Amino acid sequence: MSKPFLHEDFLLDTPVAARLYHTYAEKLPIIDYHCHLSPAEIAKDITFSNITEAWLYADHYKWRAMRACGVDEKYITGDASDYEKFRAYCTIMPKLAGNPLYHWSPLELRRFFGCELTINEANCDAIWSMTAEKLANGISARQLMRASDVRLVCTTDDPADSLEYHKQLADEGFEIKVLPAFRPDKSMNIERRGIVEYMKKLGEANGVTVTDLDSLCAALCASLDRFAALGCKTADHGMDNYVRFAAPDPYHANEILKKALASDGADVSDEELSLFQTQMNRFLGQEYKKRGMVLQMHFGVLRNPNRTMFKKLGPDSGFDTIHGQNCIYSLASLLNYLNENDALPRTVLYSINPVDNAAVGALCGSFCRGDAGCDGHGGMPTVTQGSAWWFNDNIDGMDAQMRSYANLAGVGNFLGMLTDSRSFMSYPRHEYFRRIWCRLIGGWVEQGLLPDDEDMLAELMRGICFENANRYFDFGL
Amino acid sequence: MSKPFLHEDFLLDTPVAARLYHTYAEKLPIIDYHCHLSPAEIAKDITFSNITEAWLYADHYKWRAMRACGVDEKYITGDASDYEKFRAYCTIMPKLAGNPLYHWSPLELRRFFGCELTINEANCDAIWSMTAEKLANGISARQLMRASDVRLVCTTDDPADSLEYHKQLADEGFEIKVLPAFRPDKSMNIERRGIVEYMKKLGEANGVTVTDLDSLCAALCASLDRFAALGCKTADHGMDNYVRFAAPDPYHANEILKKALASDGADVSDEELSLFQTQMNRFLGQEYKKRGMVLQMHFGVLRNPNRTMFKKLGPDSGFDTIHGQNCIYSLASLLNYLNENDALPRTVLYSINPVDNAAVGALCGSFCRGDAGCDGHGGMPTVTQGSAWWFNDNIDGMDAQMRSYANLAGVGNFLGMLTDSRSFMSYPRHEYFRRIWCRLIGGWVEQGLLPDDEDMLAELMRGICFENANRYFDFGL
Amino acid sequence: MSKPFLHEDFLLDTPVAARLYHTYAEKLPIIDYHCHLSPAEIAKDITFSNITEAWLYADHYKWRAMRACGVDEKYITGDASDYEKFRAYCTIMPKLAGNPLYHWSPLELRRFFGCELTINEANCDAIWSMTAEKLANGISARQLMRASDVRLVCTTDDPADSLEYHKQLADEGFEIKVLPAFRPDKSMNIERRGIVEYMKKLGEANGVTVTDLDSLCAALCASLDRFAALGCKTADHGMDNYVRFAAPDPYHANEILKKALASDGADVSDEELSLFQTQMNRFLGQEYKKRGMVLQMHFGVLRNPNRTMFKKLGPDSGFDTIHGQNCIYSLASLLNYLNENDALPRTVLYSINPVDNAAVGALCGSFCRGDAGCDGHGGMPTVTQGSAWWFNDNIDGMDAQMRSYANLAGVGNFLGMLTDSRSFMSYPRHEYFRRIWCRLIGGWVEQGLLPDDEDMLAELMRGICFENANRYFDFGL
Repeated sequence: MSKPFLHEDFLLDTPVAARLYHTYAEKLPIIDYHCHLSPAEIAKDITFSNITEAWLYADHYKWRAMRACGVDEKYITGDASDYEKFRAYCTIMPKLAGNPLYHWSPLELRRFFGCELTINEANCDAIWSMTAEKLANGISARQLMRASDVRLVCTTDDPADSLEYHKQLADEGFEIKVLPAFRPDKSMNIERRGIVEYMKKLGEANGVTVTDLDSLCAALCASLDRFAALGCKTADHGMDNYVRFAAPDPYHANEILKKALASDGADVSDEELSLFQTQMNRFLGQEYKKRGMVLQMHFGVLRNPNRTMFKKLGPDSGFDTIHGQNCIYSLASLLNYLNENDALPRTVLYSINPVDNAAVGALCGSFCRGDAGCDGHGGMPTVTQGSAWWFNDNIDGMDAQMRSYANLAGVGNFLGMLTDSRSFMSYPRHEYFRRIWCRLIGGWVEQGLLPDDEDMLAELMRGICFENANRYFDFGL
Repeated sequence: MSKPFLHEDFLLDTPVAARLYHTYAEKLPIIDYHCHLSPAEIAKDITFSNITEAWLYADHYKWRAMRACGVDEKYITGDASDYEKFRAYCTIMPKLAGNPLYHWSPLELRRFFGCELTINEANCDAIWSMTAEKLANGISARQLMRASDVRLVCTTDDPADSLEYHKQLADEGFEIKVLPAFRPDKSMNIERRGIVEYMKKLGEANGVTVTDLDSLCAALCASLDRFAALGCKTADHGMDNYVRFAAPDPYHANEILKKALASDGADVSDEELSLFQTQMNRFLGQEYKKRGMVLQMHFGVLRNPNRTMFKKLGPDSGFDTIHGQNCIYSLASLLNYLNENDALPRTVLYSINPVDNAAVGALCGSFCRGDAGCDGHGGMPTVTQGSAWWFNDNIDGMDAQMRSYANLAGVGNFLGMLTDSRSFMSYPRHEYFRRIWCRLIGGWVEQGLLPDDEDMLAELMRGICFENANRYFDFGL
Repeated sequence: MSKPFLHEDFLLDTPVAARLYHTYAEKLPIIDYHCHLSPAEIAKDITFSNITEAWLYADHYKWRAMRACGVDEKYITGDASDYEKFRAYCTIMPKLAGNPLYHWSPLELRRFFGCELTINEANCDAIWSMTAEKLANGISARQLMRASDVRLVCTTDDPADSLEYHKQLADEGFEIKVLPAFRPDKSMNIERRGIVEYMKKLGEANGVTVTDLDSLCAALCASLDRFAALGCKTADHGMDNYVRFAAPDPYHANEILKKALASDGADVSDEELSLFQTQMNRFLGQEYKKRGMVLQMHFGVLRNPNRTMFKKLGPDSGFDTIHGQNCIYSLASLLNYLNENDALPRTVLYSINPVDNAAVGALCGSFCRGDAGCDGHGGMPTVTQGSAWWFNDNIDGMDAQMRSYANLAGVGNFLGMLTDSRSFMSYPRHEYFRRIWCRLIGGWVEQGLLPDDEDMLAELMRGICFENANRYFDFGL
């Protein structure tokens, strides 16, 4: 007889894996160093009217899965009722066998609602009522974070943001740290319409009028100061399509920016964009390094490939995909350029394309300087590969990323999991990750590839589940 | 003691896998929605003089394997006797451990001849005699199809084809449906010598004189009508090298076509070819969509890289390989262009390069419109990834494709296996595929990742082995 | 209870795997057909003062791992003491779980020193003393080779090399064959500063003044004669970045070479470099083919991406990485060009990027001519994929390469392992490889995918571990 679905030891296929998970991994608190939670929603401690509000209002993973199962847009982002939308999601669930949603959703039901019902059309009404009742009794944003033993989250914030809610949370003394992360993408994508308006907004938020490179840099520096005052430890660069590199210098970058401002982005060529972004990466890299911040680079996403749906729904609605162009050589050139200009801070690399695992992992090793040691427990890599991202955030993708990391560097330094999520219910992804990590380690012990040495294994558990991120980002927990 | 080679439960490494295979998968009939069988050979119900005729006359998989094992061309496509060729194949078999041929060939011996002898040089004569005897007693094309419980096959046919054998089979009422599939590659590759002659042939077969874009489209439409009259449900585009995209419009396409016709292909530049093919894909996509047909896109093959052997043996003789250039961005652009022009029918994407799995799988999700639902059982994806193709049609390749599919979409909608074969004996590939599918599902249940819920599992079995293809292509079985 | 670390049957996860390893694989001698041992060190039969000298003086794998674990350069290539460097390496070892070094290093301790201590900071002193004692008692280069049952090694040598040590070893009758391998990279990279000096040196070593293409070819031919006289059976081309192809002819190649000599490399364009290298590959390919030599092509490495460290430490100090650009089409074009010009010898292809496995494996099959049969045991492929290289030389990488090879060709012809190493202690990598190979075969038998036929399995063992390389390179052992 098979063991039940998501039983206590699911994914833990060796005795060592089960022991490590239940002794260590399961009990460690959560640091979520890259997510898209709304600080306003935390500050307001929002609650939810029904499960659709919590699950389906903003989750492009679920939207995409529903589309892939032939669900009409009406039941996804359209004007169907919340109940109808939830029913549509329940209906496709059996098709999603093996998909991370097939595990995430029931884990969320179990961990937050104590509900073990299988999600399908037959159980739709029972789940709908049961969750509605519990939500009405006040499961709030903060309660979900507390129930998951979260200690710290980094949200993702624009340099033009006022950070008022971060400030409010800090002032209030909310026991979970909610830190801003600096995401300057809009000031880098100067080829897009609306750049003039954005620069105006950025300037106003930071007490500077942006007219050229110097004033842009001044605005960003002022913003960085505001972020730092609220505990910001990391910046995040979303490098769409592929990483760009073209060197020259600030003089050229300034000319290009002025052209962009004069034409609202229209006159910026592809080569000019590369040159401008390279200079901005240098400038910001220097600032991050000076400030001890970590740079996270996410690259390779093809945004809005379906123009028809983009016109209807706008960005980030579940149509983005993998660009595919290999940009390892540009990335190597950029890292070298930053390194030569004292502009390479501690850096985490994430490629959306899983075939980049080996090349990214190897490249990290080319730019480690022995300067990222954070305390007596041994140093960390200057440049390191981030956890399996987005389309790779599943069992196979995480397993492949960790194996690749281990093959090419010291997996004992791996920074572990982050949710990258907009949802307060997504913390079971950490549980999922930790089980996969324990499965990997347990498998190695089982095959005689790792000693069954409790101290060493405990250290690997604590490192990957909590301590490495704490140390690398200097969170001080 | 190990279990015997290809024993009853081979590949079925969990009790659930074995149960699912023997209860469901094994018993479902076969739909082979993409193959290269000759309709003439079915109509004539051909028989075979010896095993070489059935196995080695037209199987470039075996030719390639023999070359890779150092066999002289004489024993492959040369003038050695049929017996000598079979002996050469037997001799290399032990080298092919792990290769799909190492499993396909003995499965064919077992399923069609009841012969469990290991294929090697020592057993060559015994197998040669035994198969000869059974073949002499009349194992025919149709008997092989019936013995495999085939219900429907789609052959691959040129728009210039008369389809006389499809008509004959339909008139005769052969109980297995033999439908034509529309493969217009020759009318798209206008840069190749011989395009003038081909266009003449295409025109004649369809009652049109092809002199420009309008008349080409008219000829193709007439052909589509002829195909549709014989039950055609799908078209197949072989996009060699990589997918091309360059938009403009029919006016330019017409100019380019006229230039091609004037120079017999010589004057067509690379960019012009891209532009022409983009317009043809738009035109044909509109026609397919209107007619409810499914488009299959096969891309990434580098044809005839070995010019020396191409001059000796011509195309399709086992020298084609993987091009390697990533074309995801072009493919995304093409899909978007088709979608914007009401020219994106239900579409199946196949890349010859297994490293494209994630990018192709993700891209499908960007173009699902909720319009491919076929009945009350829930919808299907508008665009979907096809099964592991050609060089990937092996245990690792199929497993990787299915895992990737599951991670990125709803694997419950996967269309399952096709043979892509010229041989009447290749149906055990469906058995092989189904065992791998059961192994995957059984493994998930074993790890607690899927409930051991008989109804749900049965539905997954029926869908992937039969129903999904039936529904998606609208075969009406 | 888990089995101990690196126990007798580690990695051998089925009874068949264990049986095959202990009956066959473990007992076969070693051919190391591509390594970077110093012939001078063998001739002098060097000894080692301490473990750092043997392990850390020249091993860029360990250097890279240390950097990735945040170790300061002082303790890697800097002026720390040997003891301090060893201590630093011990300290990071627990971080390297899953890394090949985590298995190679303890295997070396066990096989050469009989030491089963776990390598970590706590055991650092004990290991330091114990190894020092045994090294002082005279573990020499040759003893390490003998202890590993090595029969033959191919070193990697420049055409300008005097080969004096190879000659000395041959004259002396050292029982292990130490053959030179021909590596003409420096004469191909004519765009690099210093080419004038190199060409002078090459000419002098071979009694020719190099001023143009004819004299360059004459020098290389003279060198090849000297290499052949000492038993050389193979050449090795390191094709950095990506494989280049641009055809024209010797006339153009000569013009380009003269320009390079006049400008010390400065005036050679990218396209000219491609053209020159293509012609050199043709010339050398013809020479190798005539002489019955095997060509090994290693491609895809991005050299010296970190310019800062390159300026400090020079080349080959552990900063090289994966270039990433796909060059399958160029490679296919080059192989075709060589084949058409009677210039394609038996050839082994190695890509540094593991994502090339399928494309490289398939491409080999396009250029097999049935002419690489070496004796009555059946032929070998003309072009074949080499073992998992460099960043892929780990359990996952080797397993993936062998599965890919098996899926696309006859793995029974696979040439098996080589160390690619500068260290006399790296032979346990052959043990590691053989265990992985046995695990793969055992797994196939276990799943019913391969008969448990002792003769056939024994043949697969002997072939991959010893005989295939012996036969393919014509070593005559």
